[in-house]
Amino acid sequence: MTLVLGVDIGGTDIKLGLVTEEGEIRASGKIPTEPARGPEEAAARAAAWLAEHGRGAGPVVAAGVDCAGLIDGECGFLHTSPNLAGWDDVPLRSLFERALGCPVIVENDANAAAYGEWARGAGAGMRNFVCLTLGTGVGGGIVLNGALYRGSSGFAGEIGHTVILAGGPPCTCGNRGCLEAMISAKAIIARALEMLRSAGERRPGWDGALTVEMLSHAAAAGDAIAVAALAETGRYLGIGLTNVVHILAPEAIAVGGGVAGAGDFILDPARATLRDCVMDEAMASVRIVPAMLGNKASFIGVSLLALAKANERP
Amino acid sequence: MTLVLGVDIGGTDIKLGLVTEEGEIRASGKIPTEPARGPEEAAARAAAWLAEHGRGAGPVVAAGVDCAGLIDGECGFLHTSPNLAGWDDVPLRSLFERALGCPVIVENDANAAAYGEWARGAGAGMRNFVCLTLGTGVGGGIVLNGALYRGSSGFAGEIGHTVILAGGPPCTCGNRGCLEAMISAKAIIARALEMLRSAGERRPGWDGALTVEMLSHAAAAGDAIAVAALAETGRYLGIGLTNVVHILAPEAIAVGGGVAGAGDFILDPARATLRDCVMDEAMASVRIVPAMLGNKASFIGVSLLALAKANERP
Repeated sequence: MTLVLGVDIGGTDIKLGLVTEEGEIRASGKIPTEPARGPEEAAARAAAWLAEHGRGAGPVVAAGVDCAGLIDGECGFLHTSPNLAGWDDVPLRSLFERALGCPVIVENDANAAAYGEWARGAGAGMRNFVCLTLGTGVGGGIVLNGALYRGSSGFAGEIGHTVILAGGPPCTCGNRGCLEAMISAKAIIARALEMLRSAGERRPGWDGALTVEMLSHAAAAGDAIAVAALAETGRYLGIGLTNVVHILAPEAIAVGGGVAGAGDFILDPARATLRDCVMDEAMASVRIVPAMLGNKASFIGVSLLALAKANERP
Repeated sequence: MTLVLGVDIGGTDIKLGLVTEEGEIRASGKIPTEPARGPEEAAARAAAWLAEHGRGAGPVVAAGVDCAGLIDGECGFLHTSPNLAGWDDVPLRSLFERALGCPVIVENDANAAAYGEWARGAGAGMRNFVCLTLGTGVGGGIVLNGALYRGSSGFAGEIGHTVILAGGPPCTCGNRGCLEAMISAKAIIARALEMLRSAGERRPGWDGALTVEMLSHAAAAGDAIAVAALAETGRYLGIGLTNVVHILAPEAIAVGGGVAGAGDFILDPARATLRDCVMDEAMASVRIVPAMLGNKASFIGVSLLALAKANERP
């Protein structure tokens, strides 16, 4: 049986999975990233995981490696990653090829997740599909005519850095009013705390320690501030989605990532905004759906991209 | 010699062109649209123009018809057009097929212009290309992997209705803060008059009769208000272009249409904003260029789309 390895490098953990040609997971696990120990060490530990967990499972024909950040897939380089301090201009492909002993492709994590969701999740069978990953950052990936769309520079799909509020709050990218600046986990928490302050109310445990998960639980328990903060976030998300629909007109946009755990507290206002903002004819054929593969989307996607690349070779 | 007819229906004129397979224009002209007389009459007059000007030029194998508005190319229907009052749910394709006696395709005018510029103008030889048409409205068309991209609904490329200022000024589409609401000819004139008022200055001839062309001439003559109004317009255009670059990463975005006649008074601030707003790696490979085909872009584009469709037929 042919297997491919997916390696999804996050700021805290590296998630690994051994995936069949059909996209089924034969083994999966995670190891700490420890970015300060550098990418070579990380590659060596991924190889050690494979040696332990891949034993007897069958030959691994290729591997895909993904992380957040600007990745040049052609050259196999990671330019820079928001989660991996010091990993600048790293030849990620050749490091992992040496460590793993098989062909490797590298990809942006949001692109990998979009491809995974398209191949085996919320976008299965669709021709044009977009996937947004909401968390610390806002990542995007685009599948058009059944292929991952990277654009001419290789950096297409940076939907988190589309501007929805010119002159708005500063974004990590240096610009202002980006979708990411309006709906990142940090922005949501700041919004909730500001709403709390304006209302002159207090909530035990919110100061300094508030998370989007806590807000979601509070919303589910009927907390009006939590509901309002998530709803306003959803309305900004809806504006970002409007722009995606008016440019790309996909069949569906899947929304995943930690923040998407707030579910319909965010997605319902996003859908309502979209219905208000998108022209009726363009609206009829698009759906906003939850992503299906959770935190496995990236390693599944990047492993299937590696497999597709391996199958291209003569 | 094989010829195709392009029919570009505007609010005032219908522009017609007989185009060769190589995209060369063999004859061109215009007739008044007179929308109130209805689409059947317009088709009959287009046929009369063809009978007069096509005589002896060779067989016309197909025709393409375009106009502003929401067009369903599959079904050959115009849903609604901002320039053609009363032309709602018109079976444009069958009307023109009957009048012209050849196969007809129908297309949105901005898509047609983008395809024309890609095939024979500012986007020639590019893989991924976007064309914006600035005027009364802001139209967009997208060519990806060498084909016109329409998306799953057929309504992709509505870049004029991407939101760059959430909660901003109202747009003709019913939404707020759309790129079109910020940079349409009407928005530019309102901006200039507001700047004039704020500055406590007066300009003879501006009240009520100001046009973007007048503003461009005034800017060229050194008028500070005109320069400032066009520059602010350019900065908003730059934000709209940022979103296109971050989503699509094309090789170039061409800017055409009447408002683009203001040239570098708008394009230079747009380019500067783009350099500020787009991430460096994504910026390196994109250019903002003037469109090349002027008001012939749409009839050239739609005629070549008709030809491509005719060549698909067995």
